[in-house]
Amino acid sequence: MSATIALDAMGGDHGVSVTVPAALAMLKKHPELRLILVGRQNEIAAELARHQGTESGRLRVHHAAQVVAMDEPPAQALRAKKDSSMRVAVNLVKTGEASACVSAGNTGALMATARFVLKTLPGIDRPAIMTALPTIAGHVHVLDLGANVDCTPEQLLQFGIMGSILVATTEGKARPAVRLLNIGEEDIKGNETVKKAAELLRQSKVNYCGYVEGDEIYTGTMDVVVCDGFVGNVALKTSEGLAQMVSHIMKQEFRRTAWTRLAGLVAMPSLRAFHRRLDHRRYNGATLVGLSGIVIKSHGSADVFAFGHAIEVALAELESQLPRRISEELRSLLGEQRAIQ
Amino acid sequence: MSATIALDAMGGDHGVSVTVPAALAMLKKHPELRLILVGRQNEIAAELARHQGTESGRLRVHHAAQVVAMDEPPAQALRAKKDSSMRVAVNLVKTGEASACVSAGNTGALMATARFVLKTLPGIDRPAIMTALPTIAGHVHVLDLGANVDCTPEQLLQFGIMGSILVATTEGKARPAVRLLNIGEEDIKGNETVKKAAELLRQSKVNYCGYVEGDEIYTGTMDVVVCDGFVGNVALKTSEGLAQMVSHIMKQEFRRTAWTRLAGLVAMPSLRAFHRRLDHRRYNGATLVGLSGIVIKSHGSADVFAFGHAIEVALAELESQLPRRISEELRSLLGEQRAIQ
Repeated sequence: MSATIALDAMGGDHGVSVTVPAALAMLKKHPELRLILVGRQNEIAAELARHQGTESGRLRVHHAAQVVAMDEPPAQALRAKKDSSMRVAVNLVKTGEASACVSAGNTGALMATARFVLKTLPGIDRPAIMTALPTIAGHVHVLDLGANVDCTPEQLLQFGIMGSILVATTEGKARPAVRLLNIGEEDIKGNETVKKAAELLRQSKVNYCGYVEGDEIYTGTMDVVVCDGFVGNVALKTSEGLAQMVSHIMKQEFRRTAWTRLAGLVAMPSLRAFHRRLDHRRYNGATLVGLSGIVIKSHGSADVFAFGHAIEVALAELESQLPRRISEELRSLLGEQRAIQ
Repeated sequence: MSATIALDAMGGDHGVSVTVPAALAMLKKHPELRLILVGRQNEIAAELARHQGTESGRLRVHHAAQVVAMDEPPAQALRAKKDSSMRVAVNLVKTGEASACVSAGNTGALMATARFVLKTLPGIDRPAIMTALPTIAGHVHVLDLGANVDCTPEQLLQFGIMGSILVATTEGKARPAVRLLNIGEEDIKGNETVKKAAELLRQSKVNYCGYVEGDEIYTGTMDVVVCDGFVGNVALKTSEGLAQMVSHIMKQEFRRTAWTRLAGLVAMPSLRAFHRRLDHRRYNGATLVGLSGIVIKSHGSADVFAFGHAIEVALAELESQLPRRISEELRSLLGEQRAIQ
């Protein structure tokens, strides 16, 4: 099928210097892909020229004069930036000119814009942010990563349903294993919300496999981990910080003396393979799940490789027609859910 | 000063096979230290004999017939295990026979027992679990790590005060930098509890330095991070899981071929130095802070080295007379706090 993805060319810490070369690389890699670069025409054109790229049947530039700042309050972006690259990219999904959009911009503004323009799917109270993380056994999908600070048990159930459908659809797993993030102390096993959510998930058609503690995110074997956005965001950011520290300390140790530098060179292929397997760029591209269209959030600091990966996440969801599938499954799941209750 | 510490000899995954040799090693290392091994006399005696250790002026065995199971509900442990090694070790702190106690047993049961026997300090609603974690710049203390699932803003303020006093007292820092764990999205910056807690901390005498995101736990430079027990537990456990994965994948990569094995040998000194700097055993020993006595929780899976470190945490807090100092500071801080409001 022919896929058209709109890119917020101005978003992220690096703007066009990342989004434009990433777009060109993806067009080369995926012969069926079509892209629309949304943003300031002159800046995009200059960057395209720098990379010997031109507009074509598969690459179109769509002008948008404004840019949402990385620290701009979402409400203000929504109200005052109607011609921003982010807003126009989302609009293109709404009008059907694009089948998905990708932005490395301000997460809060992207979520607010996407909700406002595209609306949530019937049966979904609030969209969630979902991404894959590497594990010992492969990878795991986690949601919510920060869109919803306080969640009701019903919302956590919806996250479980959406996560399950996403994995089933994009990875072809029949019954993805869904677990609920909790803490281990027996007396205080979870707060009331988590306990109630577990109850709802158990009654649902989701393949709910019980609680999971933080350490099992990386060492366990489930497909989906469900948690509220505050906890999920802390878990994700804490992991990022620890990974940075690990990498920093390893470099320090290998740079300590001439001998350790030499040892580092000898060990380089293994160290590279190690870094490659844990490379967060290979996991870039979080799904704003629960919307009536496909919106992918790239990390703000993404480089060309990482932003390219976010485009590929959009492509995979587009090819599996994710929102339609979620919508259909939701109708059947929530219908049965209501019948049970 | 002469310090006597009671050890729950039966607690943890490995019981006497870890606690007894760790006790002997610490007695050798700290000439002023006195220890009381609490638990089943015959099992402790057999283990002592295995290590050529004997009772002495500095090492006493105190019989306790029962053992709290690692998965036993705290309420049941409290009600039905009055002669457990854990309960008796805490009792020895209450009666003054010991100045501190260390247990690798069931966290929930230890917290419940310690609260029931020792009581919280005046002005403290609930004790918290606090531990040090390695950072790029050194280390940081985090609380609460799982004792309190839902916290009020007032409790988070108390955690900040206690953490600040602990660092000031045991590390001699004049004004430890205290920060509040939060998430980064502008529109949803924290839930109401976190916002209110920030307000209270700003008004307090604590050197409050604002919000911190998860990644900065490891890359930042503050002294104390405050969060509720659910979030703190998830952050801690997630870090443990990620560290396990990192170590697992690194081993896999160095074991891949004969050449990478050789490279691993050449790189071994740097890899060892790297592991040593991040070795969680060097951070074993969490403080149950806010009680009228010193109670240290060792990780259940601690080995001899790690359990020894937990004993040294108890020793450091004992030498700085932590509960008395917290109690004094609290009186002055909370007094002023009330005067402000």
